[in-house]
Amino acid sequence: MNLLQKTVEEISGKLESKAMEEAKEHLNNLLKPRGSFGRLEDLIVQLAGIQGTPKPQIRKKAVVMMCADNGVYAEGFHSYPQEITKFIAELSGDDGIIGSSVFARATGAQMVAVDVGVICDLQNKNIINKKVRYGTDNIAQGPAMTREEAIKAVEAGIEVTSDLIANGVDLIAVGEAGICNTTTSAAMLACFTGLEPVKVVGMGAGLDEKGLQQKIQVVEKALAVNKPDKNDPLEVLAKVGGLEIAGMVGCFLGCAAKRVPVVIDGFISGVAALTAVKIAPESKSFLFPSHVSAEQGAKIVLDVLGLKPYLTLDMRLGEGTGALMAFPIFDVALRINNEMGTFDDLKNNG
Amino acid sequence: MNLLQKTVEEISGKLESKAMEEAKEHLNNLLKPRGSFGRLEDLIVQLAGIQGTPKPQIRKKAVVMMCADNGVYAEGFHSYPQEITKFIAELSGDDGIIGSSVFARATGAQMVAVDVGVICDLQNKNIINKKVRYGTDNIAQGPAMTREEAIKAVEAGIEVTSDLIANGVDLIAVGEAGICNTTTSAAMLACFTGLEPVKVVGMGAGLDEKGLQQKIQVVEKALAVNKPDKNDPLEVLAKVGGLEIAGMVGCFLGCAAKRVPVVIDGFISGVAALTAVKIAPESKSFLFPSHVSAEQGAKIVLDVLGLKPYLTLDMRLGEGTGALMAFPIFDVALRINNEMGTFDDLKNNG
Repeated sequence: MNLLQKTVEEISGKLESKAMEEAKEHLNNLLKPRGSFGRLEDLIVQLAGIQGTPKPQIRKKAVVMMCADNGVYAEGFHSYPQEITKFIAELSGDDGIIGSSVFARATGAQMVAVDVGVICDLQNKNIINKKVRYGTDNIAQGPAMTREEAIKAVEAGIEVTSDLIANGVDLIAVGEAGICNTTTSAAMLACFTGLEPVKVVGMGAGLDEKGLQQKIQVVEKALAVNKPDKNDPLEVLAKVGGLEIAGMVGCFLGCAAKRVPVVIDGFISGVAALTAVKIAPESKSFLFPSHVSAEQGAKIVLDVLGLKPYLTLDMRLGEGTGALMAFPIFDVALRINNEMGTFDDLKNNG
Repeated sequence: MNLLQKTVEEISGKLESKAMEEAKEHLNNLLKPRGSFGRLEDLIVQLAGIQGTPKPQIRKKAVVMMCADNGVYAEGFHSYPQEITKFIAELSGDDGIIGSSVFARATGAQMVAVDVGVICDLQNKNIINKKVRYGTDNIAQGPAMTREEAIKAVEAGIEVTSDLIANGVDLIAVGEAGICNTTTSAAMLACFTGLEPVKVVGMGAGLDEKGLQQKIQVVEKALAVNKPDKNDPLEVLAKVGGLEIAGMVGCFLGCAAKRVPVVIDGFISGVAALTAVKIAPESKSFLFPSHVSAEQGAKIVLDVLGLKPYLTLDMRLGEGTGALMAFPIFDVALRINNEMGTFDDLKNNG
């Protein structure tokens, strides 16, 4: 049995109901109208169920940025050069100067970049090397990769999150860097949902109307050429997905297996989360939303997952930045649960 | 000329365009697709225009919670006892155990409670005493207070924010505590917008259907009895508003006069911000949204102000808690602006 199968078997979505009931009772006793913290209360109760205690704690947070290149770049309609993937990865890390590094520092998170398939070798020693291959093939002409390669990339994500969790990380944001990956994500989402590509293809990093039309045609072609079976999520991933998406799928599965809450970023991360849920439906219990990105398909994928974003900031950067914006929400929610007075305190003061 | 008139005359909504242009240019040069930080970029540019520098800074943050009681409590339909206002105030402050105190600690803000009109004297020495009178009169039977009292409460808010700003506070969240103040806020919003009370009255701290119907009738009666002139915001405030709302109006005006960004909390805070904008339209330049509360009128008041919430958490506590949830968004935005690498860095690395 390979690591992926083993991980999927480990996943149980059953949350600890006693801890959840106790957390609800505590929240109802806090000095506030019942339910008046809204979704912060739902978040606390879900964390209580995940951690099995009415007073859940988050001690160490991390963002994982899966990096890979995509063969569909050869179609020539993208607005940024392919080498941007490499630059983002090279400039990442806790002391990095990319968006994700700054957001991570601002929200108290470790920043971890993983090379699952950038087209060249990387110099930055902080990048975790899990390279499966040097970029994928062009989905407009055939499969992105083999099923075995997809599994290997998923397993890279499982390994990375397992290592982080072994080091005490108990909240993980999942992001990516990979030029062209709104195209591959749109192809996957169109396949999973049966929606026409025109409904799920967006402007990505910044396409004009002509570029957008080309992108729609490429997604249509990728689906026509590869004919992925929507009931076989690994096939969808291998045929029209990408290595960074596969790596993210592994992060979502790895967190679920270890019962660690995991935060979705934007469109691409959402498609990876959806893929994880298709592979292991019970992994959904560990998923948390963050923002709704400005990318066309972002709201669709959240709707399909049955999740509502906390934040509407019209961000569309990726790298896990939107997911990191949700970390302060976790921080505040947990402090409420631990520090607020109760109606019993009031009686003693009254 | 009284303090209110003087403050209104000081307010200029003109933001410094050179600083805003420079901030935009800097944001466009950061290592990311142009505009991909969405509303975080708008926030930075607005702060740049307010502070007159392309690299705005927030050094000290505070939440001001205006506390007062409302005579309409006598109508008897409210879900919580009137003394809750007093308890919230007494348990507030930097070391307090109410929601606002915990949120303030979690987001690095000072927590300031102000008594503008609680029905009894308060013991907590940290509460700023600006009591105008012991609660208002019942708006269902006549005006809440005189115009002079409303002005005095507005001026209390101006004084409190001026003092905080003189002490280096450069970001202020405006919240409240006052049983019955979703009723007074709904009456004010119905008057300003011409909307029927049924459209703007919500469940407040937790009414059942019968209580909701009573509340709607009370708002209808308050408007019929008092006939406030919607073009005279101070009259609306005095006749169907409340002392804590007046105090908040003063906070919004005081921040605008001193050119300090100020964050709206939920429904009641939003009605106060709208009143401030009606008194001094240029005060709008300094307003920032935070969340959209679960209270019925919250979205309406944001729409009327032309603001979109950053957060959708279904919170409905008040006390400034929702506004405090926006503080980490400011923190992250400013760090992006100060710490992220630029495309020039990339050339040097490439």
